[in-house]
Amino acid sequence: MDSSPSYAPLNPQSLQQRLSHIEPIAQRVGSDEQAWKVKEVGDGNLNLVFIVSGSIGTVIVKQALPYVRLVGDSWPLPLYRAFFEYHALTRQEERDPGSVPEVFYFDEEQAIIVMEFLSPHTILRNKLIAGEPVRGVAETLGVFCARTAFRGSDLSLSAAKRKADAALFLGNVALCEITEDLVFTDPYYDAKMNHHNELLDNLVTELRSDIALKTQVQHMMVRFSSSAQTLCHGDLHTGSVMCTDSETRVIDPEFAFYGPMGFDLGMLLANFLMAFFSQKAHTTSDSVEQFESWILDTVDAIVQHFNAEFTSLWNSERTGILYPKALFEDQQHASVDALNEVLRSIWEDALGFAGIEMHRRTLSLAHNADFESIEDKHVRAPLEARNIVAGKRLIMERQSITDTAALVQLIKQTQAESYL
Amino acid sequence: MDSSPSYAPLNPQSLQQRLSHIEPIAQRVGSDEQAWKVKEVGDGNLNLVFIVSGSIGTVIVKQALPYVRLVGDSWPLPLYRAFFEYHALTRQEERDPGSVPEVFYFDEEQAIIVMEFLSPHTILRNKLIAGEPVRGVAETLGVFCARTAFRGSDLSLSAAKRKADAALFLGNVALCEITEDLVFTDPYYDAKMNHHNELLDNLVTELRSDIALKTQVQHMMVRFSSSAQTLCHGDLHTGSVMCTDSETRVIDPEFAFYGPMGFDLGMLLANFLMAFFSQKAHTTSDSVEQFESWILDTVDAIVQHFNAEFTSLWNSERTGILYPKALFEDQQHASVDALNEVLRSIWEDALGFAGIEMHRRTLSLAHNADFESIEDKHVRAPLEARNIVAGKRLIMERQSITDTAALVQLIKQTQAESYL
Repeated sequence: MDSSPSYAPLNPQSLQQRLSHIEPIAQRVGSDEQAWKVKEVGDGNLNLVFIVSGSIGTVIVKQALPYVRLVGDSWPLPLYRAFFEYHALTRQEERDPGSVPEVFYFDEEQAIIVMEFLSPHTILRNKLIAGEPVRGVAETLGVFCARTAFRGSDLSLSAAKRKADAALFLGNVALCEITEDLVFTDPYYDAKMNHHNELLDNLVTELRSDIALKTQVQHMMVRFSSSAQTLCHGDLHTGSVMCTDSETRVIDPEFAFYGPMGFDLGMLLANFLMAFFSQKAHTTSDSVEQFESWILDTVDAIVQHFNAEFTSLWNSERTGILYPKALFEDQQHASVDALNEVLRSIWEDALGFAGIEMHRRTLSLAHNADFESIEDKHVRAPLEARNIVAGKRLIMERQSITDTAALVQLIKQTQAESYL
Repeated sequence: MDSSPSYAPLNPQSLQQRLSHIEPIAQRVGSDEQAWKVKEVGDGNLNLVFIVSGSIGTVIVKQALPYVRLVGDSWPLPLYRAFFEYHALTRQEERDPGSVPEVFYFDEEQAIIVMEFLSPHTILRNKLIAGEPVRGVAETLGVFCARTAFRGSDLSLSAAKRKADAALFLGNVALCEITEDLVFTDPYYDAKMNHHNELLDNLVTELRSDIALKTQVQHMMVRFSSSAQTLCHGDLHTGSVMCTDSETRVIDPEFAFYGPMGFDLGMLLANFLMAFFSQKAHTTSDSVEQFESWILDTVDAIVQHFNAEFTSLWNSERTGILYPKALFEDQQHASVDALNEVLRSIWEDALGFAGIEMHRRTLSLAHNADFESIEDKHVRAPLEARNIVAGKRLIMERQSITDTAALVQLIKQTQAESYL
C-alpha cells in the first residue's frame, strides 16, 4: 500500500498512452485510442480527475496525488488512500447496489481508479447553493446510510469478516488523521491552519472557552477513533454526492474507516443544515422560504428513510453476533425495544458528529462553499453565527433532541435569532 | 499465524530434547540437559503447561493445544492464540513493568512461550476460596488495569501505533468468539453447552425472559465487539492472577483484544464479588465476616487505585490524540471534568461487564470454582441466586451506581436478601 518508485502522475497526454491498452478501460471508452479525448476536471485538493471519452463511451480516471494540493506539495498524503477508496467503493456497491459509481479498473501502484462517468450529474452542494431541489435525494441517501451501516456491522457480517475488514481499514491512518485534526481538534483552539470570518471573533472565543463543549466533542472523538461498528464513507458531505434532478449517487470514499453507525448520517445532516443556514444569501427572497422548507423536509426524510431501512434490515438480515434472534425472536421475545435503543444511539451519535462538522466548516481549514461563496463577510457572519450556535446545541443537547421534529424545531429557533 | 504441519505437542520426554538446545532457555535452566526435570501442571483447558527445572533455575513452558480439552478434541481452537498471548505479554510488561511473567522465548510455529516461573505464587481464586488475604493485591491490580488501559489507548499512543496494534489483535478471532458466545450470549438463553444448578430454574427462567436485561447485555456486547479503546487482557478473572501473600502477577492474556477501557476492570470486580457471594460456604463462621469485609474493601481499593493511577497518567502522559493538552491545559482550561467523564464512562462499562461475567459463571459453560467447589447444591443455590440478582442490578443500574460506596451498598443489600 505504500507509494512505489514507479508511480507517476497522469497528465492528459500520458493518460492515453498509459491506459488505452488496458482491456477493461478500452472496452468502455473504445479501442481507437486516437479518438480519445481527455479533460482534467479535478478540484485539485487531493487527486487528479480526468474525463476520458472515446468512440464507445466515457469514464472517469481518478488518481491520488502524493500531497494535498490545497497547501502546496508541503503536506504529503499517502497514495494508499486510493486502495481504501477502491475497497470502500466495492463494499458500498455490494451493500447498496447502484449507490456509487461502478469501478472498471484499479491500479494500486499508480493509485488509479477508473470508474463510471456520472452524467448529467452535478455536485449536490452546488445544487443546494443554487436552490435546486433533487427528487428522491432523501431516500437514496437515507437508504445508503442505513444499508452501509447495517450491512458492514456485527449485526450482519460474520464476526470474522467484520474483524478482518476493520483491520484492513485501520491502515487508512493518514486520512483518519486529517479528520482527527481538522474536524475534532482544530476548530476548538487557535490551530495554525484555521481561518474564520473575523466578525465571528467574539463567538469563536466564547466557543473555544467552553470546556463542557470541548469535553463533549472529545467524547465524540473517542467514538470516532475507537467505535469500529461499521465501514463508514468517512466524508459524506454534500460535495461527495452527485445528482441529477432525480438521481443521486455517492462518490469519493477515500476517508473510509470503521466507525460509529451514526457518523455518515451526522456528517450528511450537518451539510444540509449548513445549506439551510446559508440559503438566505443564495436564493432570491421570493423562493428562499420554500427552498429552506425543502431542505428541512429533506433532513427529516433522510432520517425517516434511514430508520425505515435499518428497521427492515434488522428484521430481515440480522444474522450477525449482535442482538441475535436466538435471544429475541426465537424466544418469542420482541426485539423492537432493542432496535429502538440502537436507533436512539445512532441518532445521538449523528447529532454529535453533525454539530462538530458544522463547527469545523466555519472554523477550521476546509470551509465549504455554502458559506465561503458568500463574498460579503457582513452578510455571511450572521448566517455562520447561527450555524455555530446550532452546532453547539446539537453537540450538547444530543441526548434530549429525541427526533427530527425536535431537531427541526431547534434549527428554526436558531434561524429566528441573531447571535452577533 | 495459522497452525503448521510441523506443529507437535510437547510431552515431558520430548520437551527436553526439543528445547534444551535453545540458548535463551538453556541460560535460565542450565546447559546440563540431563539434569532437567519436567513436570506437567496445566489445568488442561486450552494449553499444555510444564515446569522445567535445571541446575541454574526453573521456567514455565506453555504450549497452546489445537483444541479445547474441556470438551474433548471436538472443539478446535487455533494455535495463533499463543501469538496473541506473546504480544499481549510483551505489551503488558512494557506498559506495567513487573506485572506479568517475563518472557524468555517464543516459537510461533509450535505455539510455545517460555516464561518466568512464579514461585511460591498460587492462583488468586484458590486463595480467595481458602480465605487467605493478599497484601497489595488491590494496588497491583488497580494499577495494572489503569496502566494497560491508558497506555494502550489513543490517550497515550500515537494514532498510527494504536491503529496498527488494534489491527494486529483483530486477528484473535477465535478467542473473541468464545467471549461473544459464552459470556454475552449463551447465559441469556437455553444454549447447548450451558449448565446450571437446577434449584435456580425459576430464577434463570425469569432472567432469560427479561427483554430489557437482554437488550442492555447486547448494548454491552456492542461495546465489547467494536469499542477498540485499548489492549485488554480479555480474561482477567481471579484464575488469571497469581499471588504470594504479598505479591501479585497477572498471567494468561491469550484472550487479548482491543476493547473498552473498563472491560478488564469489570471482569476482575465480578470475580471478587463472586468470591464474596460464595464465601459463606468456604470459610468457618468465625472469620467469614472479616474476610467478606476484606473482599469488599479490596473491590473498593482496586477502583480507587485504578482511578488514582489513571488520573496520574492523564496528567503526566496524555500525549495521544484524545483530550489533547492543546485544548485544555495549554489554554489554561482544566481538564478535570473531562477526566471525570472518562472515568465515569469506564466505571459504567466496568459495572455492565461485571454483571454479565457474574451471570455467565453460574449459567453458561465455564463456571468458576468459587461456586462450583461447593458440592451441596442446596448450600450453593442461595449464594448463586444472590450473585445472579446482583449481576442483573449491576447491568441495569450501572448509570446510577455512582461509585464503589454505592456498589458495596448494593452488594451488601443483596447479601442480606434471599432470592429462592
